[in-house]
Amino acid sequence: MTSPRINHQVRLAKRPEGKATREHWHFTTEPVAEPEEGGVLVQVLSLSLDPAMRGWLNDARSYIPPVAIDEVMRAGGVGRVIASKNPAFTVGDTVYGTLGVQEYILIAQDQVKRNGLVKIDLGVGTIGQWLNVLGMPGMTGYFGLMDVGQPQPGETVVVSGAAGAVGQTVGQLAKLKGCRVVGIAGGAAKCEWVVKELGFDACIDYKAGEGAVRAGLKEHCPKGVDIYFDNVGGEILDHVLAKLARKARIIICGAISQYNNANSVPAAGPRNYLSLLVNRARMEGIVVFDYADRYPVAIAELAGYLKDGRMKSKEDTVVGLDTFPEALNRLFSGENFGKLVLQIENQSAHF
Amino acid sequence: MTSPRINHQVRLAKRPEGKATREHWHFTTEPVAEPEEGGVLVQVLSLSLDPAMRGWLNDARSYIPPVAIDEVMRAGGVGRVIASKNPAFTVGDTVYGTLGVQEYILIAQDQVKRNGLVKIDLGVGTIGQWLNVLGMPGMTGYFGLMDVGQPQPGETVVVSGAAGAVGQTVGQLAKLKGCRVVGIAGGAAKCEWVVKELGFDACIDYKAGEGAVRAGLKEHCPKGVDIYFDNVGGEILDHVLAKLARKARIIICGAISQYNNANSVPAAGPRNYLSLLVNRARMEGIVVFDYADRYPVAIAELAGYLKDGRMKSKEDTVVGLDTFPEALNRLFSGENFGKLVLQIENQSAHF
Repeated sequence: MTSPRINHQVRLAKRPEGKATREHWHFTTEPVAEPEEGGVLVQVLSLSLDPAMRGWLNDARSYIPPVAIDEVMRAGGVGRVIASKNPAFTVGDTVYGTLGVQEYILIAQDQVKRNGLVKIDLGVGTIGQWLNVLGMPGMTGYFGLMDVGQPQPGETVVVSGAAGAVGQTVGQLAKLKGCRVVGIAGGAAKCEWVVKELGFDACIDYKAGEGAVRAGLKEHCPKGVDIYFDNVGGEILDHVLAKLARKARIIICGAISQYNNANSVPAAGPRNYLSLLVNRARMEGIVVFDYADRYPVAIAELAGYLKDGRMKSKEDTVVGLDTFPEALNRLFSGENFGKLVLQIENQSAHF
Repeated sequence: MTSPRINHQVRLAKRPEGKATREHWHFTTEPVAEPEEGGVLVQVLSLSLDPAMRGWLNDARSYIPPVAIDEVMRAGGVGRVIASKNPAFTVGDTVYGTLGVQEYILIAQDQVKRNGLVKIDLGVGTIGQWLNVLGMPGMTGYFGLMDVGQPQPGETVVVSGAAGAVGQTVGQLAKLKGCRVVGIAGGAAKCEWVVKELGFDACIDYKAGEGAVRAGLKEHCPKGVDIYFDNVGGEILDHVLAKLARKARIIICGAISQYNNANSVPAAGPRNYLSLLVNRARMEGIVVFDYADRYPVAIAELAGYLKDGRMKSKEDTVVGLDTFPEALNRLFSGENFGKLVLQIENQSAHF
């Protein structure tokens, strides 16, 4: 008999008021048990780090319950089945699901669906791609753009957080649908990448000084903005509102600029919201989970683009469970360049 | 030969920064000319005073050009044809159109369409009703509720400015469509009227003290708000955002609480707009003119309800062109009780 596996975990110690720092987490260990009838034991390989995670730390009504104090931090990720008493999963299967910020997860039969555990095919995409274009960010971008935005060829699409996980899918997909695409991102390097590598028509560097967003929208959206995919909220949303075209659609996907406020409530709302009236425009929120039954359709389409090179996917990978507190904050400072992935250090230790 | 008719007019003297007062208008007179070939001379009987008029005074991009300095103030109204060289109009016809704040309007052939001049039937509704339920406010309420709101039986509809022109149509129509209807209005008298006379399920008095709107929404919308028809903006919009039901629709019709700000830009935006995300909800602006080709359908339906008593219509009539500056401001102080109508004093002087 081998010595029992030890699971290292990151749990929520206390709720942050602003930025979550190391003091808000505690690191625990516990032995890993074997699955009961119908259960599956998964070793976590890589986790998706997303802006939405900050919201899950607030004790506020939202689309998903908050993470409880002392609970293992919630995170989606890719893992490998290392023990199974469930006929749907075999040892060696690669799986996607809500795995948590930890090295192992034992999922009982009645939790398989709740954790969204599904097999994935690494022939279709890499682990990074399954957490990015083929994962939640990609699904969010796909259904937000296609269902809420309903892009028409020739329309002007603006996307904030353009170099981020959702933004890169949105912008590339909009180009494939025949739109003119203008990104908004922080820094010259991201802007250059978005234009040169991803093929956006233009990208506005919001860090380029006061007035940069306003001037950039004026220059690059002379006919106004038909679709705005908003990942950031704050002043940028207000600037875009002021440039809406008739019958514009704004997809409210997130507001990363506001997530470190108390309970994620924005410091100020969008003052220019009456532009919705003047322009007969619409602002609509989406939550990706609502589209779960249509993920396969979106994945098939996006995997096709990845395969034939019409779509690119960029991940920014941080290694090691213990780096989680600092890694998460890279999203809010804009330090990440591409989809932020936390690779669990010992991912091949037990094979 | 009779002496020439004299037209008394109200023109914009200068643009107001906040509230428009008497100093922003000047009163002029000019002789009334006879129509040329294709033209129509209309005597103004009653004018519609609407919150949107304040916006037309700002030198800002909007859905309609601003009223120019020294131009006769724009206003929709009902008049009577007193001379016609246009085969579509006969002396004695009652007409609706953009007539302006004046006693007479001479409309040249090429301006008939631009002024929206159409014959109306006083057998279908009174002049007051043609300016209210059967006029722009009614059309706004009808298409905002039906097209943007898409009410389903059993849903909870909240409408602000409930005793106003748009609000009374929206609330009664929503009841007829099988919804639970909660009004928001200023003062006990309006609230009582809205419930007892119009049949709303409840009405919240926003003047009843701090916390009244929040508490009222909690009490009267236990399952959340499915549709919010917003005429007022400001804090009330934020309170309703905090109570949205899943897949809620907010119709942005106006923001009367903000119209006396410089250029009608709200002092603050709706901080709770991320409730749109959490609840997969939608906020959409409407401009009634977009539905012009469907007015007849709406008028036919609403006139039917008026006729069989299923819908009521309340007008608040002020008499006399010279009262215009003060009459308009009654909308912003909430002094009007029902659709505000300016009756032109001498309306029968020339018959």
